[in-house]
Amino acid sequence: MRAGDRANDQMRPISIQRNYTSFASGSVLISVGNTKVVCTATLEERVPQHVNAEQSGWLTAEYGMLPGATFIRNDREAAQGKQKGRTIEIQRLIGRSLRCCVDLTKIPGWTILVDCDVLMADAGTRTASITGSCVAVYDGLKYIGKLEAFAGMVAAISVGMVENEPRLDLDYTEDSSAETDMNVVMFEDRGFVEIQGTAEKKPFSNEDLSVLLEYASRGIEDLFAIQHEAVAKIQN
Amino acid sequence: MRAGDRANDQMRPISIQRNYTSFASGSVLISVGNTKVVCTATLEERVPQHVNAEQSGWLTAEYGMLPGATFIRNDREAAQGKQKGRTIEIQRLIGRSLRCCVDLTKIPGWTILVDCDVLMADAGTRTASITGSCVAVYDGLKYIGKLEAFAGMVAAISVGMVENEPRLDLDYTEDSSAETDMNVVMFEDRGFVEIQGTAEKKPFSNEDLSVLLEYASRGIEDLFAIQHEAVAKIQN
Amino acid sequence: MRAGDRANDQMRPISIQRNYTSFASGSVLISVGNTKVVCTATLEERVPQHVNAEQSGWLTAEYGMLPGATFIRNDREAAQGKQKGRTIEIQRLIGRSLRCCVDLTKIPGWTILVDCDVLMADAGTRTASITGSCVAVYDGLKYIGKLEAFAGMVAAISVGMVENEPRLDLDYTEDSSAETDMNVVMFEDRGFVEIQGTAEKKPFSNEDLSVLLEYASRGIEDLFAIQHEAVAKIQN
Amino acid sequence: MRAGDRANDQMRPISIQRNYTSFASGSVLISVGNTKVVCTATLEERVPQHVNAEQSGWLTAEYGMLPGATFIRNDREAAQGKQKGRTIEIQRLIGRSLRCCVDLTKIPGWTILVDCDVLMADAGTRTASITGSCVAVYDGLKYIGKLEAFAGMVAAISVGMVENEPRLDLDYTEDSSAETDMNVVMFEDRGFVEIQGTAEKKPFSNEDLSVLLEYASRGIEDLFAIQHEAVAKIQN
Amino acid sequence: MRAGDRANDQMRPISIQRNYTSFASGSVLISVGNTKVVCTATLEERVPQHVNAEQSGWLTAEYGMLPGATFIRNDREAAQGKQKGRTIEIQRLIGRSLRCCVDLTKIPGWTILVDCDVLMADAGTRTASITGSCVAVYDGLKYIGKLEAFAGMVAAISVGMVENEPRLDLDYTEDSSAETDMNVVMFEDRGFVEIQGTAEKKPFSNEDLSVLLEYASRGIEDLFAIQHEAVAKIQN
Amino acid sequence: MRAGDRANDQMRPISIQRNYTSFASGSVLISVGNTKVVCTATLEERVPQHVNAEQSGWLTAEYGMLPGATFIRNDREAAQGKQKGRTIEIQRLIGRSLRCCVDLTKIPGWTILVDCDVLMADAGTRTASITGSCVAVYDGLKYIGKLEAFAGMVAAISVGMVENEPRLDLDYTEDSSAETDMNVVMFEDRGFVEIQGTAEKKPFSNEDLSVLLEYASRGIEDLFAIQHEAVAKIQN
Repeated sequence: MRAGDRANDQMRPISIQRNYTSFASGSVLISVGNTKVVCTATLEERVPQHVNAEQSGWLTAEYGMLPGATFIRNDREAAQGKQKGRTIEIQRLIGRSLRCCVDLTKIPGWTILVDCDVLMADAGTRTASITGSCVAVYDGLKYIGKLEAFAGMVAAISVGMVENEPRLDLDYTEDSSAETDMNVVMFEDRGFVEIQGTAEKKPFSNEDLSVLLEYASRGIEDLFAIQHEAVAKIQN
Repeated sequence: MRAGDRANDQMRPISIQRNYTSFASGSVLISVGNTKVVCTATLEERVPQHVNAEQSGWLTAEYGMLPGATFIRNDREAAQGKQKGRTIEIQRLIGRSLRCCVDLTKIPGWTILVDCDVLMADAGTRTASITGSCVAVYDGLKYIGKLEAFAGMVAAISVGMVENEPRLDLDYTEDSSAETDMNVVMFEDRGFVEIQGTAEKKPFSNEDLSVLLEYASRGIEDLFAIQHEAVAKIQN
Repeated sequence: MRAGDRANDQMRPISIQRNYTSFASGSVLISVGNTKVVCTATLEERVPQHVNAEQSGWLTAEYGMLPGATFIRNDREAAQGKQKGRTIEIQRLIGRSLRCCVDLTKIPGWTILVDCDVLMADAGTRTASITGSCVAVYDGLKYIGKLEAFAGMVAAISVGMVENEPRLDLDYTEDSSAETDMNVVMFEDRGFVEIQGTAEKKPFSNEDLSVLLEYASRGIEDLFAIQHEAVAKIQN
Repeated sequence: MRAGDRANDQMRPISIQRNYTSFASGSVLISVGNTKVVCTATLEERVPQHVNAEQSGWLTAEYGMLPGATFIRNDREAAQGKQKGRTIEIQRLIGRSLRCCVDLTKIPGWTILVDCDVLMADAGTRTASITGSCVAVYDGLKYIGKLEAFAGMVAAISVGMVENEPRLDLDYTEDSSAETDMNVVMFEDRGFVEIQGTAEKKPFSNEDLSVLLEYASRGIEDLFAIQHEAVAKIQN
Repeated sequence: MRAGDRANDQMRPISIQRNYTSFASGSVLISVGNTKVVCTATLEERVPQHVNAEQSGWLTAEYGMLPGATFIRNDREAAQGKQKGRTIEIQRLIGRSLRCCVDLTKIPGWTILVDCDVLMADAGTRTASITGSCVAVYDGLKYIGKLEAFAGMVAAISVGMVENEPRLDLDYTEDSSAETDMNVVMFEDRGFVEIQGTAEKKPFSNEDLSVLLEYASRGIEDLFAIQHEAVAKIQN
Repeated sequence: MRAGDRANDQMRPISIQRNYTSFASGSVLISVGNTKVVCTATLEERVPQHVNAEQSGWLTAEYGMLPGATFIRNDREAAQGKQKGRTIEIQRLIGRSLRCCVDLTKIPGWTILVDCDVLMADAGTRTASITGSCVAVYDGLKYIGKLEAFAGMVAAISVGMVENEPRLDLDYTEDSSAETDMNVVMFEDRGFVEIQGTAEKKPFSNEDLSVLLEYASRGIEDLFAIQHEAVAKIQN
């Protein structure tokens, strides 16, 4: 049995709280079970060198974890003087995924800086970051009056093979014992944005893949609903 | 008039929430007005080289800010590859101050790692970090059954001369225009642990100093009460 | 038409040359069209801290590019003082993939260090690195008389949607204009080890995915044959 | 008894030698007992980004120690690749303090770079650095014909509680056993610029503070006299 | 007897292969016995700040080793986050030497970036780098139609005292036991560009020096011939 | 005419002052004209990993410049976070040269740490560092009662071709316009330890080399005398 009596195709309780902090243009706290991530979107009127400010804007993402976010404290990267390989991999994934949800040609000269900081980590932090940040980006665009650049929701969830069974939304215990671990990112009404599947312990088959993507697709449909519900709420 | 109609010797609303996250042994969210800091205490059974593990434990502190914690986004230090001078100065102050509140000889071989991460910064983040972390350290010691090593509360507040008037607990607007800025740390029933006063715009006199310390002492007495009230609450 | 009149499901000419240099235990030059990578495997009798030397060995991989390997010279990472995010992402993928092809419990106390250095880059350097390194690992294990730890071949290829058509083994021109780019790693007779699909320009559907994986699987079958042919050759 | 039969409110022998080296515009060797610091002031016609070159100049300070300056050799920071927290804290203090002694609006577009390098360290290196550098800054301003920007002397000394007694100008032996250690910076005729008091072993009271500040003020008065005597000497 | 029955004044077999890779303007593989170095020359239309783009061009060199180039694997500098002292010393030598073979005033505004990457290291990698890169620079200048800026060949070889005998072109075994090790760089028809002689085990005399320079001069004459033969070949 | 009416084969005034600072075991101020370097030798009872503590000791050297040591201030390397290539090259030369003057097998388990810090730089800082440090090493060995490990004096001087004339001991003006610049290190009664000659502007001939070495040898003989005179003085 899964913790909390979850079915294999059931996600943990999910909530998205907007305006979590008050200085960034978009600020969201997303909770997926015990995993909690603060996602902020800041908009600045400048673009990096490789972008033509006349023709396009840009979006970039950074990811971090509070040292106390994990059961065993994780080292503060700022004190170590460099980001871990895992961190860099994750923030590149978040950035790539979120660039789908914005039509950058409609915000020429602007950069959206997304920050995902994990308060508590019980697996699925990168997918929660994508799902939560998409709402923060929505609020950020709204703040500068450019909501027309928002192209639609992007959301993500993990799936995996655990004890030879497909499961949706792994928690830390499941994640560390999974044979296969997969992160799936989708764009509403349009399809897959990213699939990253890794055989941690055992190669996976075409059939495994089909079931996992089926589970993920259904979960992500629910995430789209939760995102839309969140942005529908009136904010003061 | 001060924001929120505060009197010159009045602090902003303060709250201390224990068990803010659930993995670290001690985890506190302290709010001082809009300033919000997550303080966690992690205990590990190892000490740095300069400490004799048979005779003593150790306490060390690190400080950071979420990039979205400030009105103008602040750069992520982990991405820059180094901590700012300001950060290093602050975490050294926090560590020194908190080492007073623990009798390290009663936890030989243990290190208390304190992490202060600022969610929102409206000035006074270093003093809020000290006040909140002291409660996290209390919970951390309790968690390993070593509450006898807790020597008493340490708390801190800022004071300053603004428009030639002494004021208690400056917010960001006041802090950036203050003539003198002072951080005061006290140990309950025992006196001053640290005084750091800086004339940002104009030297200060012995008389200024007296009033500022008077304001600070009274404010810190209130902080001690809030800390004790927090630890008196029953936790599940 | 594709460069070199290739069919959509056709790979570029591939060759694997063993003993390319003579100091490392395994040393392979793999060419996939104009993409050329030197892959070496060095074996050392020590393991990192997180591995129990009594029970297991370890395999780790590093990746680099000669500055002159690309049409526009790429900066030397050693001179910049850090590896790029892309490099870190790639070497993590190579390491994960190759750990499948070795039964690490059969080489307790040993570390296999794989180095992939790109002499010429015409896309597909990460997949060529995996395919070539697997042969270098084979030679490295043979060198220390532990060929029984070799669990089978691992090989990889890229696929992608270009101009709305699925294509196998993208070259640089195709890769930079692809709508979707996917790297597929397989373990012979056992299935997928890693799938990393990214919608660079347009989300992809379940159908797209099926064709791409079909193309990749067929290409990788050919790579397995080329690998086996290479190791079957008698070396002096 | 104190080393050298000093009274508790007596400083060590102090000397300020101008033109210690000949390339920097201002170059001072200050000796406070065995503590010896070379202080140079270099003037450059450029300001950092955060300063408006039309309206203001800037002053910045750096601090270092020769590796052989201490009884136990201290690591060369350049070889370690970073400055210690202590160094950063000290150079921030020196910079802040010296910015008082210059009216920066009278040197628009100029930066004064102060370098304090410790040849021998017997405690009190940061306060000696401030006292000596102030004279170097004077000479630097004179060199570019802008002595009217010099606002007055800034000087500093340490005080502390040692064996429950207040003492002025601690040497290394006293400093390492002090219960409280305090650095005091003053601006002549105007008051305190900085007070940094730290209870190393035991909190201090308002009464302790009063005596310590009294000792410091008197010591600093003597330092002002020594500084004025130094700048009154005719230089070739 | 020397390995390969070489006479004391005999070099190892040497070959220079142009167009080794196809993206850089100049790309040479030089082999000196088992020592193999890829030398590429890239030309970019920009110069560093210290060069006046109207009046001059610039040439700079970087050096690296593949981790598998040595019998004992050498650490990847990019992963260590810094170049070794030895690397920096070598690339400064290569750059200085090659700046002789180009009349930089004839390529105003251009920078020649030379990269020397060692595939196999059996001693003499720095001298092989100079000899091979000179040909790559020739090809690079030809590529941009500025062959008139090529001032003549520069070539280099090592000599040393081994077992009290002078020897030309040391291999690794000789190099590690040499009493004196010397690198000599010459400019054809003009004389010495650089002499770096180091007594590793025993000081050397004026007489030793004379014989070593005699051996080196003769070897370098042969290198000039090999360089000219290489550039005389027609390239497709 | 040379500055100070020097003959071409004449060195600048040279002095060696022992016990310049009092904490390091050996501490020397060497002045060569306006070039002034503090050389200290510290002895520690530990050796680096690559040395067998039973059989040998070790000697290592570090080099630095005070920022104010040059006419144009040079950046503080500690603040830049890395040592310049020039610094690394110099400290490697100093270390290699000084390892000649100590029989390391007679101080098993000890490391001599030499620090050369330039107070004023008027060219020739690396050769002055070697000459001065040799005396500091002598004093360091004496301090631990191991003078029998001192193998003899090592000294160094620069020579160069300036305006087509050979000159001994170049000052900054000469050094920056020299056609050839050469640093020569010798071991008394035994010969050359290091020759580093660089054609900065024009290749040099065998004849140039002969004269330069002749000048250097004679200058170094004088340096040996100055070193011996210095160590012959009785120290308190």
